[in-house]
Amino acid sequence: MKLRIDRAALLKAMSRAQGVVERKNTIPILANVLLDARDDSLSLRATDLDIEIVEKIAGEIDRPGATTVAAHLLHEIVRKLPDGAELTLTAEPDTGRLEVSAGRSRFQLATLPKEDFPMMASAEFACDYTAAAPLLRRLFDKSKFAVSTEETRYYLNGVFLHVAEDRDGKHLRAVATDGHRLARIDGELPEGADGAPGVIVPRKTVGELRKMLDDDDAAVAVSVSETKIRFAVDGLVLTSKVIDGAFPDYARVIPAENDKRMEVEAQAFYKAVDRVATVSQERSRTVKLALDEDRLVLSVNAPDAGSASEEVEVAYPFEPMEIGFNARYLLEIAGQIERENAVFAFSDPGSPTVVSEGDDRSAIYVVMPMRV
Amino acid sequence: MKLRIDRAALLKAMSRAQGVVERKNTIPILANVLLDARDDSLSLRATDLDIEIVEKIAGEIDRPGATTVAAHLLHEIVRKLPDGAELTLTAEPDTGRLEVSAGRSRFQLATLPKEDFPMMASAEFACDYTAAAPLLRRLFDKSKFAVSTEETRYYLNGVFLHVAEDRDGKHLRAVATDGHRLARIDGELPEGADGAPGVIVPRKTVGELRKMLDDDDAAVAVSVSETKIRFAVDGLVLTSKVIDGAFPDYARVIPAENDKRMEVEAQAFYKAVDRVATVSQERSRTVKLALDEDRLVLSVNAPDAGSASEEVEVAYPFEPMEIGFNARYLLEIAGQIERENAVFAFSDPGSPTVVSEGDDRSAIYVVMPMRV
Repeated sequence: MKLRIDRAALLKAMSRAQGVVERKNTIPILANVLLDARDDSLSLRATDLDIEIVEKIAGEIDRPGATTVAAHLLHEIVRKLPDGAELTLTAEPDTGRLEVSAGRSRFQLATLPKEDFPMMASAEFACDYTAAAPLLRRLFDKSKFAVSTEETRYYLNGVFLHVAEDRDGKHLRAVATDGHRLARIDGELPEGADGAPGVIVPRKTVGELRKMLDDDDAAVAVSVSETKIRFAVDGLVLTSKVIDGAFPDYARVIPAENDKRMEVEAQAFYKAVDRVATVSQERSRTVKLALDEDRLVLSVNAPDAGSASEEVEVAYPFEPMEIGFNARYLLEIAGQIERENAVFAFSDPGSPTVVSEGDDRSAIYVVMPMRV
Repeated sequence: MKLRIDRAALLKAMSRAQGVVERKNTIPILANVLLDARDDSLSLRATDLDIEIVEKIAGEIDRPGATTVAAHLLHEIVRKLPDGAELTLTAEPDTGRLEVSAGRSRFQLATLPKEDFPMMASAEFACDYTAAAPLLRRLFDKSKFAVSTEETRYYLNGVFLHVAEDRDGKHLRAVATDGHRLARIDGELPEGADGAPGVIVPRKTVGELRKMLDDDDAAVAVSVSETKIRFAVDGLVLTSKVIDGAFPDYARVIPAENDKRMEVEAQAFYKAVDRVATVSQERSRTVKLALDEDRLVLSVNAPDAGSASEEVEVAYPFEPMEIGFNARYLLEIAGQIERENAVFAFSDPGSPTVVSEGDDRSAIYVVMPMRV
């Protein structure tokens, strides 16, 4: 194998590849990236056995061939080479080394045989559709904060992507929850997506996918089966196993009858919660919301450190009510609100509260109260 | 105690105070800052028993008084209050709380009695002088990287600040070493500093002092005794114990006879060392320098990962030589060079090497070689 390649293109591809490669590996080849040079391009393949990323970039191939080298190391080397450099990659089968050279720098890197590199079994996809990058970005960006990190509840360790139908018609929907809060985000159903099976996209896949979605004009080819999901854009293909489990019946926990509506300026609310929460060092800091005729008083009481309260103007034309929430959950949800106002719909201090952006129902959040 | 104070002024003072306060304290009062309001100012005092910082800022004192509150908490609160806010601080002796209010935010913070706050014993200083902030900044900035972190060699855990004399006359000199590398930085001797005892300024003090030296025009009042050093600028006084130990006779380890001179562009050298060091994951990565008539080849050999080499143009009109160094030490020293060229003076592969900035002897570095 021998090829010449532009540093910038290789750096971009290697940063994506090393995102998939786990830092700690018991199987040495999983620390490597498979480089395969043929025709006019270099393909880079990296995997952690659950996610596989393959990217093709243009290069001048003098001699086709393939080998594998440590992904983090190659990434570091490419990163440290000067901007604008042209790299020459040469692998002589008999030396077992990949030579990387650029200018006066020369590296001889240990390789492992390309034959040992694990390939993800190819899958039959039940459904293929094309989604605009901004659609996928919104679905995942606004839901992922609610993904559970509890390993025992593995079926909550991802975003449930599926087709949902309500009175407004069918949507492509992303739902995530950890049992304490829930995010339900709807987007327009792309053509051809109607039959797609619902799948739980793992947290790490969501993170790696996100890096493919920066270009507003990109069209992402999505393929879904019961066990895998694939996203392809330009020369880049991300294939991931989905979580093998049943996502809970989330519709059941979204209250439909909450009739006490409070409207508040989202940013002012966020800052006030953040301030009053300062006095508590506990992990589950409870913020009390005391509502009384267009007036909200946020307060936190921490026996050791002291207490804090702040008044916020709201629109709330109902009976006085007191309800408590975990401060972090409130902050995360308030941080999702892109419009000026957040709308809270309360039932009573013991029941889940629904938060939305104004009257837009395409992104709703549910949060469980805490006793105050 | 009751006073009104500008958020920006209090935030600045609190960030300095909380720098001194240790995050973890077995003695509760050491987590606190002592607030003392009298006349037209609020004084803030924080200590870890080794360093004490006292800052006076202007405020409107409605009722004088003093109390102590958790430094990190007050800092967080002030930080989160909106820009431009005016804070009211009120301590009622009978409640044992400090009330902090601004706009619609109100905090009640736990206090501890001001009488329990430890005061550093006042010291008789042997010598007082005034030093320009840029002088002190240079002395400490360029030497502190070489301070040892090995607790057993406590006498190396700081910068040795003293008056030194050589053929160019007397200097204010900062020296730091960890036994593997050494930095010796000279500055003009301020008037009145001649009799100052040599003291080892602890690493943490150096860090806190640095925050006082940003203003190029500031004149810092320095007071030194055998046991303490004090720096005062504007309303801010930092007093620190010095390390009770004897700094080694560093002059002994600075070779005077190294005659093999190599001159190299400092940034190009830094980048080349950084690149070749990439292949080694070890903590003490050895970089080999092979010199041969105006040509330097840097190389690293890591049995597992591979090897790297890079050629750098140098001025070196001597016999070929090979010498090895810890990559990190080379990088740290090369990173200190502000002029274009670094000058290395070698003796032989087993002896310490001297690095300087061009022919300027006011900042020199010594680094021990490693076997290659």
